[in-house]
Amino acid sequence: MKSVRVDGARLWRSMMDMAEIGATAGGGSCRLALTDEDVAGRALFAKWCAAENCEMRVDSLGNMFARREGFDNFPPIIVGSHLDTQPHGGRFDGVFGVLAGVEMVRALNQAKVRTRAPIEIANWTNEEGARFAPAMLASGVFAGIHAPDFALARADTDGKTLAQELTRTGYAGDEQCGAHELSAYFEAHIEQGPILESNDETIGVVTGAQGTRWFDISVTGEDAHAGSTPMPARKDALAAAAELVTGFEKIARKFAPHACATCGEMHVLPNSRNTVPGEVRMTLDFRHPEDAQLANMAKAAQQLAAETSAARNVQISLEQIWHGAPVKFADACVDAVAQAAAELNYPHRRMLSGAGHDACQIARKAPAAMVFVPCKGGVSHSESEYATPAHLEAGANTLMHAVLKFDAAL
Amino acid sequence: MKSVRVDGARLWRSMMDMAEIGATAGGGSCRLALTDEDVAGRALFAKWCAAENCEMRVDSLGNMFARREGFDNFPPIIVGSHLDTQPHGGRFDGVFGVLAGVEMVRALNQAKVRTRAPIEIANWTNEEGARFAPAMLASGVFAGIHAPDFALARADTDGKTLAQELTRTGYAGDEQCGAHELSAYFEAHIEQGPILESNDETIGVVTGAQGTRWFDISVTGEDAHAGSTPMPARKDALAAAAELVTGFEKIARKFAPHACATCGEMHVLPNSRNTVPGEVRMTLDFRHPEDAQLANMAKAAQQLAAETSAARNVQISLEQIWHGAPVKFADACVDAVAQAAAELNYPHRRMLSGAGHDACQIARKAPAAMVFVPCKGGVSHSESEYATPAHLEAGANTLMHAVLKFDAAL
Repeated sequence: MKSVRVDGARLWRSMMDMAEIGATAGGGSCRLALTDEDVAGRALFAKWCAAENCEMRVDSLGNMFARREGFDNFPPIIVGSHLDTQPHGGRFDGVFGVLAGVEMVRALNQAKVRTRAPIEIANWTNEEGARFAPAMLASGVFAGIHAPDFALARADTDGKTLAQELTRTGYAGDEQCGAHELSAYFEAHIEQGPILESNDETIGVVTGAQGTRWFDISVTGEDAHAGSTPMPARKDALAAAAELVTGFEKIARKFAPHACATCGEMHVLPNSRNTVPGEVRMTLDFRHPEDAQLANMAKAAQQLAAETSAARNVQISLEQIWHGAPVKFADACVDAVAQAAAELNYPHRRMLSGAGHDACQIARKAPAAMVFVPCKGGVSHSESEYATPAHLEAGANTLMHAVLKFDAAL
Repeated sequence: MKSVRVDGARLWRSMMDMAEIGATAGGGSCRLALTDEDVAGRALFAKWCAAENCEMRVDSLGNMFARREGFDNFPPIIVGSHLDTQPHGGRFDGVFGVLAGVEMVRALNQAKVRTRAPIEIANWTNEEGARFAPAMLASGVFAGIHAPDFALARADTDGKTLAQELTRTGYAGDEQCGAHELSAYFEAHIEQGPILESNDETIGVVTGAQGTRWFDISVTGEDAHAGSTPMPARKDALAAAAELVTGFEKIARKFAPHACATCGEMHVLPNSRNTVPGEVRMTLDFRHPEDAQLANMAKAAQQLAAETSAARNVQISLEQIWHGAPVKFADACVDAVAQAAAELNYPHRRMLSGAGHDACQIARKAPAAMVFVPCKGGVSHSESEYATPAHLEAGANTLMHAVLKFDAAL
């Protein structure tokens, strides 16, 4: 059992076959949740699972579970991730975790390795949040974080709801989402950051995830003519917003090295070359591994907003729209990943996840952990996202042996 | 002749009648150049001119000239402005100058005042530049600043050219644009700034206009995941752009009190909440009454861009796309406006125009000057733009008597 290994070349071929579905001109993939492309990706996944004699079940949120039976009476150990992508998504984010699961089952079948608990490969619906906000939606319902009705009513920009699209695509399954029992959850994923690559390490043993606070910000000044309004008479919403952007950066530096601050979205009104902007709407994304520090960052942001508002004679509202507390993965799962990486002789480090993942949701319901592999330049959510075949193979081997260790200890 | 006065109530009614065409929910008007709304506005103007026995001529750029004959052999004195508006335009910008001309002709007709030179009321096509860039397009062709073919080929965002829209609306006139002779040009306009109002003055005697430089700026960094990319590893295009925005403000302060700097337009890519922006495109509008100082401001901006690029590891290009030199109006016209305001006992000041106007173009071809009236809060390019009936009446009286003085001195 210790000598069983995945077939790296077969895994890579499956990755590239999946990437053909919704392939973009820039070398990435576009499979927004429950679009026809996503449905085609799901069908290919289901075909591969059927070829390995796995039974597929679909729950009421469209989450897919392909089951390889065990020989003992335990709830399944689930491995997986998501097949949906960003609009300009890459070929690895999410896909790797699902297909590492498929490859692991192929390898176990080939080597005739039997496990005590069943193994299930999960594909979680709408992880990206690119079509239906928020992200990690269906794994959130599975973990009891969101009510099913909340999730089913989420609408895309065309007004189509998740419920309508589940029905249209035939993915509104019979099983109630969250009813599924499980022993543990393991997820392999590209790091989506530069740490493993820059330290020349192969495996990240993920011990938890940062906390996140999301804010919607609006700055209200006054439209004015760019030529005839003297500088001191202006209420320039964009100049105030610019001061916020660099101010939030300074807050992240104050809480270094773990804090992140990002203004990812900005809308300027009226957005006309010769008009002083009267309004700006923007977003702020704060991250920190410690919840108390995250709260301090939020306080500092509110203070900056108040100071900027007073100094520039504009109104600023900074509204927190989401708070994801930091996640600590279960020791039993994390240790299984660390031991697997060590025994496989992969250079590895314990690290936090900067991004949110389905595993961060599932961790609130069951023991969970993650396996990271490096990605080129730390780039993700981009068509140029890349991970080497060797790293993906190492990640899948680590995933498989972590599961086998956890299973043996049940 | 000295006792003739415009009818302020009649002028106000005409202003409000015109504002009904393309009226917006917010109390402004939307008549983008050569849209059906603009055509309806032109028709109402033409009807009013015909009622005053003026003959209408239209040139090849759609500029309209309504002629009241004189009794001597001089080229006409032209008064006017524009009837087109910003998308969220007000009821006064441009409209006032045209309808002050109509009201002046009504008053002269009623009082049976004859002038030596003919008087023509002009409505210049596409002053705003909101539909076809650049602004002051047809008066620019009239003054020989733009070639007619350049102007005719300008396209709106739907790809429709000015030439196509002139043909569609029947406003491609026979007379070649610019062939028209004139003795002088006078334009009444709301100030679009706060100076007259804050000094409690009724009339601005405009001696010239600031110079302008427009820049297109692009900042190129790298898209990255907001959660998993440590702050020092980022190439955040929006953070760099924010530093430029506040830096350009500092340049304006260095060249105070006359300098203005405005970033009016900004587009952030990919504009996604949890992605570090990899690209920003923005505009910069610099103004100063002295050309040499304007050049120094441009140098300072290029230096700021180079420093920001180096400090933040992003690429920045800052391309000047337009340079409008400062304009000095002809003494004879400016003095006529000043004397008219003085004799009418209106509190007045000599001042520069912060904005560009058709008069700034015509001034390169013929003697010209402008009459400013206060507008509420200095607000323009806004649905809430407002000027009082009393101020508009004073402006129209000043315009009329400046023309009569200039005419008498011919």
